[in-house]
Amino acid sequence: MNCLEERILKDGVVKSGNVLKVDSFLNHQMDVELMDEMGKEFYKRFGHKPINKILTIEASGIAIACGAARHFRVPVVFAKKSQSVNIDGDVYCAEVESFTHKNKNNVIVSKKFLGPEDHVLIIDDFLANGCALQGLVSITEAAGATVEGIGIAVEKGFQIGGRVIRNLGYQLESLAIVDAMDAESGEITFRQQ
Amino acid sequence: MNCLEERILKDGVVKSGNVLKVDSFLNHQMDVELMDEMGKEFYKRFGHKPINKILTIEASGIAIACGAARHFRVPVVFAKKSQSVNIDGDVYCAEVESFTHKNKNNVIVSKKFLGPEDHVLIIDDFLANGCALQGLVSITEAAGATVEGIGIAVEKGFQIGGRVIRNLGYQLESLAIVDAMDAESGEITFRQQ
Repeated sequence: MNCLEERILKDGVVKSGNVLKVDSFLNHQMDVELMDEMGKEFYKRFGHKPINKILTIEASGIAIACGAARHFRVPVVFAKKSQSVNIDGDVYCAEVESFTHKNKNNVIVSKKFLGPEDHVLIIDDFLANGCALQGLVSITEAAGATVEGIGIAVEKGFQIGGRVIRNLGYQLESLAIVDAMDAESGEITFRQQ
Repeated sequence: MNCLEERILKDGVVKSGNVLKVDSFLNHQMDVELMDEMGKEFYKRFGHKPINKILTIEASGIAIACGAARHFRVPVVFAKKSQSVNIDGDVYCAEVESFTHKNKNNVIVSKKFLGPEDHVLIIDDFLANGCALQGLVSITEAAGATVEGIGIAVEKGFQIGGRVIRNLGYQLESLAIVDAMDAESGEITFRQQ
């Protein structure tokens, strides 16, 4: 069991509707020592690859990406979410549709910060249906950059996002894959990795 | 001259309309080693105070706050921006009006993560008119917590935000205070601190 799985068992809260609250340490209040430990774990799994940039998406991916970037010693670029369609030509933009919220968002990265020379590790906090992640992959490919891997903190293994990304052939590593949750008992079942 | 001032002179770009672009190292692409250096500088200025929490606001404050949190060894809480008024009772909420964009935003922090026992260092990337910062101060006071200080990366010294906050009696420390910029020559004048 790694540092994140342990912390989820200690401080995560299961709510009805398959909601896992990790806002006391991961995505509202943040434990930077944990981020550092998680970064070390990502480095173990991807450190052999020629990664020169970490790409994430605002807001809750940023701290995790920074925790990883310290170990890889590379810059972080964060994609911005925007509902505006008033995008100028200097950005890569992917329109992603949220299954959860039933709305569309643009994911935007300046062309200055992503190009064919880049070998990218994509990092995000949660993977469920994977809409935001698909946008990040699409932008990386559009820039002619190489997706070297994808690092996720918490994957909901019972939703479709992880399977889609693995089927597409990407190396996806999730520090915690939740295969089942029970809001009544509070029990969380992790996938053995 | 500190690490941030040096980096602004090297990689910052002055645009017309008093715009300073620092998106290659601070708020779109991010240099985590610089964040660490900035965190060390904040610790020099505020380390003698009983700070047990760092408060920032999404998105571009997060990386800087995390860089500081490593030195203070305290958690980071980031406030969320929301235009929705559908706020439940479990959050502190400040409505802030943007001078720049002429719209209103809610700044929101869960009540779970801020209370009377907290001694808070507020951190953000930019201070111009100070609307977002006023929201963070307001929320901290509403929680009964103590604002021990405010750390800013780049302050536009020719705009009103810094003066207002200092007049209110808060210890505000900006790593770089830009007193003047010239878009034609690219010249940047820092305030001597």
